[in-house]
Amino acid sequence: MILRDPVHGLVSFETEESSIVPRLLGTREVQRLRRIRQLGLTSFAFPGAEHTRFSHAVGAAHVMQLLLARLRQIDQPLPFWQRPTSERGRDAIAAALLHDVGHGPFSHLFEAVLPGHVRHEVWTTRILLDPSSDVHRELAKGDAGLPQRVADLVCGKHDLPYLASAVSGTFDVDRCDYLLRDAHATGVIYGDYDLPWLLRSLRFDLDRSAGAEAPKLAVDGIKGITAIESFLLARLFMFQQVYFHKSTRAAETMIRLILKRAFELLANGARLPMVLPAMDAVAHGREVSLDEYLKLDDQELLVAMRSWEDADDHVLGDLCRRLSKRALFKTIELGNVESDRPEQEALDIAREVASRRGLDPNYYVALDRASDTPFPRDKNLVVVFPDGRRKSLAEVSFLLGRLEGQTLSRTRIVYAAELREELGPALSS
Amino acid sequence: MILRDPVHGLVSFETEESSIVPRLLGTREVQRLRRIRQLGLTSFAFPGAEHTRFSHAVGAAHVMQLLLARLRQIDQPLPFWQRPTSERGRDAIAAALLHDVGHGPFSHLFEAVLPGHVRHEVWTTRILLDPSSDVHRELAKGDAGLPQRVADLVCGKHDLPYLASAVSGTFDVDRCDYLLRDAHATGVIYGDYDLPWLLRSLRFDLDRSAGAEAPKLAVDGIKGITAIESFLLARLFMFQQVYFHKSTRAAETMIRLILKRAFELLANGARLPMVLPAMDAVAHGREVSLDEYLKLDDQELLVAMRSWEDADDHVLGDLCRRLSKRALFKTIELGNVESDRPEQEALDIAREVASRRGLDPNYYVALDRASDTPFPRDKNLVVVFPDGRRKSLAEVSFLLGRLEGQTLSRTRIVYAAELREELGPALSS
Amino acid sequence: MILRDPVHGLVSFETEESSIVPRLLGTREVQRLRRIRQLGLTSFAFPGAEHTRFSHAVGAAHVMQLLLARLRQIDQPLPFWQRPTSERGRDAIAAALLHDVGHGPFSHLFEAVLPGHVRHEVWTTRILLDPSSDVHRELAKGDAGLPQRVADLVCGKHDLPYLASAVSGTFDVDRCDYLLRDAHATGVIYGDYDLPWLLRSLRFDLDRSAGAEAPKLAVDGIKGITAIESFLLARLFMFQQVYFHKSTRAAETMIRLILKRAFELLANGARLPMVLPAMDAVAHGREVSLDEYLKLDDQELLVAMRSWEDADDHVLGDLCRRLSKRALFKTIELGNVESDRPEQEALDIAREVASRRGLDPNYYVALDRASDTPFPRDKNLVVVFPDGRRKSLAEVSFLLGRLEGQTLSRTRIVYAAELREELGPALSS
Amino acid sequence: MILRDPVHGLVSFETEESSIVPRLLGTREVQRLRRIRQLGLTSFAFPGAEHTRFSHAVGAAHVMQLLLARLRQIDQPLPFWQRPTSERGRDAIAAALLHDVGHGPFSHLFEAVLPGHVRHEVWTTRILLDPSSDVHRELAKGDAGLPQRVADLVCGKHDLPYLASAVSGTFDVDRCDYLLRDAHATGVIYGDYDLPWLLRSLRFDLDRSAGAEAPKLAVDGIKGITAIESFLLARLFMFQQVYFHKSTRAAETMIRLILKRAFELLANGARLPMVLPAMDAVAHGREVSLDEYLKLDDQELLVAMRSWEDADDHVLGDLCRRLSKRALFKTIELGNVESDRPEQEALDIAREVASRRGLDPNYYVALDRASDTPFPRDKNLVVVFPDGRRKSLAEVSFLLGRLEGQTLSRTRIVYAAELREELGPALSS
Repeated sequence: MILRDPVHGLVSFETEESSIVPRLLGTREVQRLRRIRQLGLTSFAFPGAEHTRFSHAVGAAHVMQLLLARLRQIDQPLPFWQRPTSERGRDAIAAALLHDVGHGPFSHLFEAVLPGHVRHEVWTTRILLDPSSDVHRELAKGDAGLPQRVADLVCGKHDLPYLASAVSGTFDVDRCDYLLRDAHATGVIYGDYDLPWLLRSLRFDLDRSAGAEAPKLAVDGIKGITAIESFLLARLFMFQQVYFHKSTRAAETMIRLILKRAFELLANGARLPMVLPAMDAVAHGREVSLDEYLKLDDQELLVAMRSWEDADDHVLGDLCRRLSKRALFKTIELGNVESDRPEQEALDIAREVASRRGLDPNYYVALDRASDTPFPRDKNLVVVFPDGRRKSLAEVSFLLGRLEGQTLSRTRIVYAAELREELGPALSS
Repeated sequence: MILRDPVHGLVSFETEESSIVPRLLGTREVQRLRRIRQLGLTSFAFPGAEHTRFSHAVGAAHVMQLLLARLRQIDQPLPFWQRPTSERGRDAIAAALLHDVGHGPFSHLFEAVLPGHVRHEVWTTRILLDPSSDVHRELAKGDAGLPQRVADLVCGKHDLPYLASAVSGTFDVDRCDYLLRDAHATGVIYGDYDLPWLLRSLRFDLDRSAGAEAPKLAVDGIKGITAIESFLLARLFMFQQVYFHKSTRAAETMIRLILKRAFELLANGARLPMVLPAMDAVAHGREVSLDEYLKLDDQELLVAMRSWEDADDHVLGDLCRRLSKRALFKTIELGNVESDRPEQEALDIAREVASRRGLDPNYYVALDRASDTPFPRDKNLVVVFPDGRRKSLAEVSFLLGRLEGQTLSRTRIVYAAELREELGPALSS
Repeated sequence: MILRDPVHGLVSFETEESSIVPRLLGTREVQRLRRIRQLGLTSFAFPGAEHTRFSHAVGAAHVMQLLLARLRQIDQPLPFWQRPTSERGRDAIAAALLHDVGHGPFSHLFEAVLPGHVRHEVWTTRILLDPSSDVHRELAKGDAGLPQRVADLVCGKHDLPYLASAVSGTFDVDRCDYLLRDAHATGVIYGDYDLPWLLRSLRFDLDRSAGAEAPKLAVDGIKGITAIESFLLARLFMFQQVYFHKSTRAAETMIRLILKRAFELLANGARLPMVLPAMDAVAHGREVSLDEYLKLDDQELLVAMRSWEDADDHVLGDLCRRLSKRALFKTIELGNVESDRPEQEALDIAREVASRRGLDPNYYVALDRASDTPFPRDKNLVVVFPDGRRKSLAEVSFLLGRLEGQTLSRTRIVYAAELREELGPALSS
Repeated sequence: MILRDPVHGLVSFETEESSIVPRLLGTREVQRLRRIRQLGLTSFAFPGAEHTRFSHAVGAAHVMQLLLARLRQIDQPLPFWQRPTSERGRDAIAAALLHDVGHGPFSHLFEAVLPGHVRHEVWTTRILLDPSSDVHRELAKGDAGLPQRVADLVCGKHDLPYLASAVSGTFDVDRCDYLLRDAHATGVIYGDYDLPWLLRSLRFDLDRSAGAEAPKLAVDGIKGITAIESFLLARLFMFQQVYFHKSTRAAETMIRLILKRAFELLANGARLPMVLPAMDAVAHGREVSLDEYLKLDDQELLVAMRSWEDADDHVLGDLCRRLSKRALFKTIELGNVESDRPEQEALDIAREVASRRGLDPNYYVALDRASDTPFPRDKNLVVVFPDGRRKSLAEVSFLLGRLEGQTLSRTRIVYAAELREELGPALSS
């Protein structure tokens, strides 16, 4: 199987270890990723951001192939039982392809809504292990242990730390692909970094002193520092410019409010068109089954919300109409206003303003918190020098020393546009 | 308003004549283009091809701005009443943005299905002229004649041929943008050409001998030939590689068959979920209203077809299930089989094979014809030389002389995959 | 050895078969290529075109590695004695690196000047086979037959036609690299084509019917046509836009005239500064030795010509001063003037005009002929289809059918700028 | 005049204010920049780095045009006497083109060698002001004050700080161009940043409180932070990866040693071929005249050094032969060896080792110090917010806060390769 990919160019899955890819691509669960955009509602802010989790999954599997090729250039110092064998290669490629197979619509938005806040990683595991899924069946064909091994890898568990962290770590194929892909689709070049050089800079950290039984991935201290700096800064920049963009966050907040309203109405016995089984479950506090969950995607939710534009409930209809014509809520970043008024207080003021203007304060005003750590402390990624010294990234790079552990956050009041004139002064007074 | 565009980079609409753009972007009808992908089902073949007609519309308006800037560098020889005034600039930018506002889902597929085969250009005109549309209202604000002028431009009508052909011609802003955009999204580089250089190569053809009252656009015979060759060949290459791709054509054929079946069932009184008003109209031979038409988009149709996966009708359910898991029909290109068996005969054979295998020959086998002329004869685009000579592109370029008027076509039998083994031999015998 | 290349990105020579590359890069003869620009005087027209034959040589060796990797993916149908073994791989990589090692300064200009018009391929062979060259010594280390085998490959001779044509053929690593590199350096995008896809489209032509004993390279008739079309058109476009650019041709003509004058002066016993041994040899009709030839490079010649700016001979000094301040001669393309006056007649007229103006007609006016065949007929590159059919490129592609065998030529009168006003009318009358 | 540039694409100088550019391009002094590579000997490390100061000068003038266009979009709040008038535009474009016209060969290497260490900026000023230079004559045509105004601008002096800093400041057109150009030529992508967005993020800082009489350039605190961060980090990365590359530094050190030896020999009355007048002057402690200085370029020096390969003096001949076959000296970075031995001590040890091996310690061993401050404190570049607040870059960006004032330095012992085995242990003991 060969494919054209806008980010990586020619992508091929033609080796024996990658023959699992075409089979997995034919499953219902992977095809569903075509209907979930990688960046949710970001296309409201960056019109090009329509790329899907499907193309990202393919890209991640491709990068895993590149990474395996590199590992095999440098695995001579490893005992043979620690090398990336063909079987491990297949496991890793499958895990790369499937790492997000349980993702819900609109980024992480749906996770917050589900009872118990089930995270998408949990759904991924369920899909992998549930004997009724197409993905499970394809994986289990001829190797009953594969679904579990892939599930472990997706969670970052493996006897070989270098394989686990390649699927889920500071420098993993997920990030390698999405930074480039998000940059390509949004037109924001800050996500670019030098993937081939970074791969070429990888080494095995053979240090056993720290009790490590198996080798970790490391970066060459002479050749690789700028490459890894640039990779980690790309993440920072993409958070600043894209992932935390105010319009995207406002749109996601609106969807949260729409769903909240819909669930309340449903819980109270109201009837709405296009209610998906998973919505019904949530509304009535019932657990969402895997089957119901897999019916959720961007398209289903957007179509449902458009069908609610004519709902009897004024609030629901109004919010849905705003969304579909991109009449987005506005935002005030709390860190940016002069006074350092605590968040709750700010929210209370905003609600009061809304009430005064006759808008339901529970649906026309909200608090939105976004935060992430672009470069968390990670013991599994070190720097090695030709003379054998080992250092942490933070020690070697003064930029990364500054970035490490930094949490980037944006807290905003999100509110209906008609409140703008009143709200600005009220919050800064 | 400034935007990031993956193709053009920084895009801004900040001049007075472009202030119409942000207003039009806020309309329901333009926002609807976010839900219609530029290349329909092409993402089945090229996973990156998820870009929408919305981003293309923005791109076309941007290219129009670039073109106007160029025209204003070279308009000194024109009498002032033929120059691209600020008012004409606004009209042209609006027309560029709106040229596809009446497009239906899945490329031109829906046009064939509508009673009377109403083409998307007709819908565009209706939207522009219908006083109830948001677009009409925005256009008519302060200039009641604008909707009609934009409608004329979209159809390639204007007193100034150079403006008309810039909206709709061999070298128009539509093609300028979509070639680059489709190349960027699919990863097929053949759509690339040198837009800045091509714009810089433009001249006015001031020849009046041929009775022309107003100037046309022309290409500089010294500087511009390779640029325009490369532009026109880009179109040819994109047809060969992308627009006529067998998987896309197979998927579109499947949707045609699905709709055909659904309309028949509806006409016979069957009940189906998620039937859109426009579908109902088509099924019962009723005319589709503008309002009904505007409810059609990729998302609505895909969600409807997924809801039909469980339909009582076996054929409909089966076809929909195949589509949603990308179990696409296969194709045989008739020109490629050894014998030159006429199309109808080939179709008959295919149908017979289907029947023998117990598949309904009307739904599991179809004939698909795709054809286009990448470079049609066009009197409005000539080549001028510094010494005043005028020539046609075909005279000046031996490649374009060869390409001019060439119709590229692909005729294929599209059939359910399980017929492959039988059908191949049957058609080539 | 790893390198950063502006065209191919990360370039590495780390396998056993490529270990010859770092050794060859350390030779005097290869290092000399750093002092010869790939496009001679083209930087007068395209300021970026300063890239050297050294970087092109590295690029060609890199592309050979990519090609070998592809050949090894598809060589299963070949008997083992026809496969690209590691030894053949090394030979081919060395040949790719060294294919232009005998190139003289300023493109092919010097070839015309040497007694007997020795072509650069001959010098390449001499360097390879001369036991005193560094290159020979490196090649012969441990394999005395290697210099001869490389020399054969460079001339397109090998038992395996697919290897020979990869070094020197319609689709060879030389062209693969220089089109991309020249496009990158000049900023003319028309040289771009899709190298990875083209490589992936390669097949072996296993047809033995035509008496062929060994397989040739072929292009896949389904996947590869657009890729090879685009590659061959890229060559056409680069000739039109870059290689035959009038300023480059004018500058090369000036250097021809400068050398002609210098040789005449030297032959008559005049003394000039900075006369290189090879110049002296040419001036006195002596054969140029390899050692003398290798002292020629862009820098030496340019510095010599600058030192001649103050020569006693007025013509020589004047021409050199013009060149160094880029006061280039002008050109009239004979095909472009209205009358089809034969070349010699045009030259005579131009000379007369020069004489009238007091300029030596032998040095201030010249005829320049440039011609090339972007896509010559080539039996060694065919198209194969999955069903076994074989066709020629010209049969399969209507563009290539038109391009095949076409000779592109430009004949120009090159003349001192001050003659412009008189010469234009004189030639077109 | 239109040009193709590999970095900026289509570059044109067609306005009245830029009509000075074609005239200046025709001068001897600007044409000389074709013979001085932008990155000196960097092509020894990055084979693509052959681009010249000529193409950079053109690029800088082009960026100045882009910057002026932006300034004119935002100059409404300025009183008319502070606006970038057409005359100021011409001055700024000329200054951008000429900012490096006095640059000597091989980066800053020659400055260190000249008596009094005359910096290239001084030579630039001399060229601008000397009535005998072509540049001066072109500038002075019709505006006798222009040479002085351009000279002031090049030194960062102007009544309008925003113009001065655009020619010479933290964010100036020089850096804007060279980062992109060096990245393009070397293949090191870290020099990339988003030029159009950065220009679009510019504002005028209208704050008068600080006693400022005239407006400065500022960056928009909402839109522009990532763009300027990325610009400044690009500089850091290019220093780390390219500008301080050990092979380049080693080659430059070799040239320093070669010249030192040559000057000593000349001072002692020895005769060498190809001695340029400026060399003779330096050797005998005579001042270098402008005319002599302008004869210096990469080509002249390289050709001279090749002619010295056969010098009687063993050291000079040997060093020159090493250079021309790229047998570069090796380096040990002092910061990287375990002990923190002071530099002089390290050099003494190295010299001793050289002596023991029979190599002249003054010519086969040297200390090389490179240092730069990628982001110096700069009061002329601030951040402004829509609400009027002004902040410094370091306050707004935690990365820039960390980078500000950081001096990047590399101190290395540079030594003949044959000393490697002995020197390594000796220095780390």
